[in-house]
Amino acid sequence: MKVIQIREPKRSIEEAIRSLEVVEKPIPEPGRGQVLVKMAAAPCNPSDLLFLSGQYGVKKPYPAVPGWEGAGTVVKSGGGALAWWLQGKRVACGGQTDLDGTWAEYYIADAKSCVPLHDAVSFEQGATLLINPLTAVGMMEEALKGKHRAIIQNAALSQVGRLLRKLAEMEGMPIIDIVRRDEQVKQLEIEGAKHVLNSSDKSFVEHLQTLAEDLKATIAFDAVGGEMTGTLLNAMPEHSSIYVYGALAGKACGGVSPLSLIFQDKSVKGFWLTKWIKESGALGTYMATRKVQQLMGSGTFHTTISQTVGPDSWNEALLEYSQSMSSGKVILAYNSQ
Amino acid sequence: MKVIQIREPKRSIEEAIRSLEVVEKPIPEPGRGQVLVKMAAAPCNPSDLLFLSGQYGVKKPYPAVPGWEGAGTVVKSGGGALAWWLQGKRVACGGQTDLDGTWAEYYIADAKSCVPLHDAVSFEQGATLLINPLTAVGMMEEALKGKHRAIIQNAALSQVGRLLRKLAEMEGMPIIDIVRRDEQVKQLEIEGAKHVLNSSDKSFVEHLQTLAEDLKATIAFDAVGGEMTGTLLNAMPEHSSIYVYGALAGKACGGVSPLSLIFQDKSVKGFWLTKWIKESGALGTYMATRKVQQLMGSGTFHTTISQTVGPDSWNEALLEYSQSMSSGKVILAYNSQ
Repeated sequence: MKVIQIREPKRSIEEAIRSLEVVEKPIPEPGRGQVLVKMAAAPCNPSDLLFLSGQYGVKKPYPAVPGWEGAGTVVKSGGGALAWWLQGKRVACGGQTDLDGTWAEYYIADAKSCVPLHDAVSFEQGATLLINPLTAVGMMEEALKGKHRAIIQNAALSQVGRLLRKLAEMEGMPIIDIVRRDEQVKQLEIEGAKHVLNSSDKSFVEHLQTLAEDLKATIAFDAVGGEMTGTLLNAMPEHSSIYVYGALAGKACGGVSPLSLIFQDKSVKGFWLTKWIKESGALGTYMATRKVQQLMGSGTFHTTISQTVGPDSWNEALLEYSQSMSSGKVILAYNSQ
Repeated sequence: MKVIQIREPKRSIEEAIRSLEVVEKPIPEPGRGQVLVKMAAAPCNPSDLLFLSGQYGVKKPYPAVPGWEGAGTVVKSGGGALAWWLQGKRVACGGQTDLDGTWAEYYIADAKSCVPLHDAVSFEQGATLLINPLTAVGMMEEALKGKHRAIIQNAALSQVGRLLRKLAEMEGMPIIDIVRRDEQVKQLEIEGAKHVLNSSDKSFVEHLQTLAEDLKATIAFDAVGGEMTGTLLNAMPEHSSIYVYGALAGKACGGVSPLSLIFQDKSVKGFWLTKWIKESGALGTYMATRKVQQLMGSGTFHTTISQTVGPDSWNEALLEYSQSMSSGKVILAYNSQ
């Protein structure tokens, strides 16, 4: 079978992408409790770019096959009731921390982590079922659990951003969407967003402060980091928490007022899907994937896909993606060639 | 009576101190549930300097009498059983958020917030009974409650730092003390500190990382802020929290790795005594003051006092204090002239 392989992580994402190569490997054998999935589609997410540059929270031995999620058909069971039951089914799969990833023709999946796909959900949409949607579901849960009245998020045109806005709308919770350019503001308004701010505007901080105060927005999800973390937290009301879940600025979080931490009971935390899944357990995660599939099936949720390519065009597609993530996901499909 | 008054906060602490003036005011009348305390001693704490520069978490109308704590003798009751019982007693008092502060000859105290002093505790020591010791007690409780195995603190020669080390020793919990100069390292070693690091050393980060890992130090108390916050948190093991409780660097907290927030479950919070007291309730706070007095009486706890002066020398003493806090507290005493 063909797989995409990285020999070693490179600090520069561009260099890492250029170093990816298509190699031949034997088709692996599933062990007990595992299944072999013939992959139909696998996306690239920001977490893959972090993995390529050696910065992700899970390390694998190199050379490694990247890819944290995807969708395909179960073609073989390694034994056990669940693996047996999954045979022939279309599934979303992912999350292997010690085996090869999903950027391959065949993938060994833990049967427990496979999610059978509803008929209405395509392989392409199903390939993006786990990471971004569950991140958005996890964030929404955090906001509800903490009894927050409104949410702030940046990178609002990302897939997570779009999904979180949908979920917030469904819960009737106001959300303040932050983007960096005027055309992104317009795009969000076309998509029905109600509270959109442009962080490049001169009066951004002032507007954010007023809006956050009015809506009582005491929770923020920050995909950017750098000085943005402090800018958001300082503008938020008392008892606010900011959850950093991405590092798009490529810089350390800064600008956080120590006095607002002390006297206004504010805090800075992290959000990581892997941790959320552990804490939610199998049932919680299953219920979340069910909800996401219903929303995907009904068209409420939809992952924007910019292009679907075969392995030989993957490097090129990844370079484009890494430079303009808000245009949509790129999908690797071995059979689309 | 004579009081120390500030007409308005000044952004520069030096300017604020120079602007303090001694003025005459009528002796106030205690209301129901209040007592009139003839003040014997009142200290200056970092929280007073924040108040003078308009940065403290509680604002008062100006002109204002500063001073968040002190000790004296109850000379009049405003009515109510507790106030009546306190008459003639030596007490520690403080914490008025909407009345004049303790830098005065007489002070109106809430009877519920008065702590009768044990005979073995002097007015000078009693004057510093509440803010620093309770801060240290609150921090130690936070460390125990969170089941942390070891503590990190900077500004380790401050009163809070010294007291926290004592408490940690008593609990058998290792503490890593951070200071900025070699002579401070020596001083701490003389005082019996076991794990002392100098943040000016080239290998500071490396040593901190190794020591924190070895001791499993997953909680830090940061009086400094600025880049120090990130330096500490990044060097700490997984699942670490840093509590910022001071802003000695006068700069925003920065340098916090977004990836360590996300993948290592780290967080940045604030610690404020006022919030701790609210959460601990009357009994929790009373038990803490009792413990502190026992330690003060037995000589285990001792606030280092650099000088005790009358109101006319107060500005000068404050200037010295603000430039060299680790030499000890300055105490205002109307009758020491």
